[in-house]
Amino acid sequence: MAMMTPPIAPLMPAVTLLDYVGIAVFAISGAVVAWEKRQTVVTFFFFAVVTGVGGGTLRDVLIGAPVFWMHENATLLICMTAATLVWFTPHRIWGGQALAWFDAVGLAVYSTYGAAKGLAFGAAPLPAFGMGVLTACAGGIIRDLLAGQPSILLRPELYVTAAALSAGLMVVLTLAGMPILAAGSIAAVSGFTLRAIAIRKGWSLPGYRG
Amino acid sequence: MAMMTPPIAPLMPAVTLLDYVGIAVFAISGAVVAWEKRQTVVTFFFFAVVTGVGGGTLRDVLIGAPVFWMHENATLLICMTAATLVWFTPHRIWGGQALAWFDAVGLAVYSTYGAAKGLAFGAAPLPAFGMGVLTACAGGIIRDLLAGQPSILLRPELYVTAAALSAGLMVVLTLAGMPILAAGSIAAVSGFTLRAIAIRKGWSLPGYRG
Amino acid sequence: MAMMTPPIAPLMPAVTLLDYVGIAVFAISGAVVAWEKRQTVVTFFFFAVVTGVGGGTLRDVLIGAPVFWMHENATLLICMTAATLVWFTPHRIWGGQALAWFDAVGLAVYSTYGAAKGLAFGAAPLPAFGMGVLTACAGGIIRDLLAGQPSILLRPELYVTAAALSAGLMVVLTLAGMPILAAGSIAAVSGFTLRAIAIRKGWSLPGYRG
Repeated sequence: MAMMTPPIAPLMPAVTLLDYVGIAVFAISGAVVAWEKRQTVVTFFFFAVVTGVGGGTLRDVLIGAPVFWMHENATLLICMTAATLVWFTPHRIWGGQALAWFDAVGLAVYSTYGAAKGLAFGAAPLPAFGMGVLTACAGGIIRDLLAGQPSILLRPELYVTAAALSAGLMVVLTLAGMPILAAGSIAAVSGFTLRAIAIRKGWSLPGYRG
Repeated sequence: MAMMTPPIAPLMPAVTLLDYVGIAVFAISGAVVAWEKRQTVVTFFFFAVVTGVGGGTLRDVLIGAPVFWMHENATLLICMTAATLVWFTPHRIWGGQALAWFDAVGLAVYSTYGAAKGLAFGAAPLPAFGMGVLTACAGGIIRDLLAGQPSILLRPELYVTAAALSAGLMVVLTLAGMPILAAGSIAAVSGFTLRAIAIRKGWSLPGYRG
Repeated sequence: MAMMTPPIAPLMPAVTLLDYVGIAVFAISGAVVAWEKRQTVVTFFFFAVVTGVGGGTLRDVLIGAPVFWMHENATLLICMTAATLVWFTPHRIWGGQALAWFDAVGLAVYSTYGAAKGLAFGAAPLPAFGMGVLTACAGGIIRDLLAGQPSILLRPELYVTAAALSAGLMVVLTLAGMPILAAGSIAAVSGFTLRAIAIRKGWSLPGYRG
């Protein structure tokens, strides 16, 4: 692994910014769960960090990349700032639809980015697609497990599906030769749009009825 | 880790086939849980993948091996095919004993293989034994956690014990100098036999009664 | 990763001993949960191992270190001995306060050691602090998840907070230039003292009341 030069390097500034957006959004969603359960400030921090970095951490471990937040302070600072923000702002800001929309942005960005990073580290197309879905969804799955609430996996709404759309498009368009920024934009906007429709119209997948 | 040449290499074709058998069986067991909970097709896929590759993934991360399914499409295709199969076939196929028997094959094969791979990557005997148990059981444990159902760990039936028998025999026989194929056959057949008796006769371990 | 020489090396004997103390204590706490649930001996072993090595394993995977118990038998032997001990000794030993006090020692030692190992492997200060907290708390979190009981994360008592105090002091004092043994002693004693007060006086953090 150590000898691999990830081709994503020249794009790092843009990619890092997107990464931070995803982290902040998911960290807020973790802190909001701590808030709904009337937890302590330490638990606010813990949930913000685990939800904010969980998906990307799992991705990095699986693709053999150094864990992205280990050699800098910025990422954890973002998560702790998010937790502090949720602690000090009034309920109604996070109780309504606002969080769902922020989360939709994070979902689209993170799944696109995760798939790109998977490809950059030499994953085959299908695993790279899986890395995108995992990056976007694993933080929330871990958050739900720790909070003892039903996993996002078991809800029929179009959530994992929107992540799959972004990750899938990113892999297909990149392998078809499209420049990474164009592919990434199309992938992220498509996933966000599907998730937006799901939020607005309540679209969901049908459960099994064999 | 990168410099280690695993002695298991010449046996890779046979080992890969066994690996695929284990993956397919566990992926089916994951999809069946999604089916019991009347989930969506996306959740079918997710559970099939997580259950199919979860144990082996954890093993590879812990022994410092590249994650086995990351550089090929075949493994995830097997999991997704398993999920599709469960979605389209009638209930009764998976509702009865059939799954338990397939799972017994997977359990025996995976625990034997996991212990062998642990030794091949330089693990000490006891950790290599642990890797065998983990490879066979972790996928199911993660599946139960995500599905919110009681962990297989908390059931008294001879399940983890059968995996421990296979893994333990594999380590002991290999260290005693037996050729890997002979050791593997004895280990896998022994674990399968113990599990088969447990299924047929309802054998289980006694719980603590201090 | 493989080329990094951790500066912690000369202190390895003392550090290894502390590591074993933490492992033994947490392994006992895992076995006690198996005992409370009247589980089988196999589950006793499984819970002892997972709780004993869970936090340190996660830390090593995240910082890119070889998993600490993979190339020796001693660590798993300690866990299995702890499980056997809990199985064969009378209830009342573990039912009272004794375990809480042992656990307080493990918590302080493990969080201090985890932060030091994080720094030794090149983690930035905030992630190194996080590694300390994780080393001390993740084993118990995984134990609670597997046992299906409310996570230690959701209890208001000063538990994660005590780990954070030890980990934070270790990072700050080390970066301020204090020798590692002095820093480690101050950090571990401080965290233990806070935890001791929490056990004796029932101190806890206030939950959110926005």
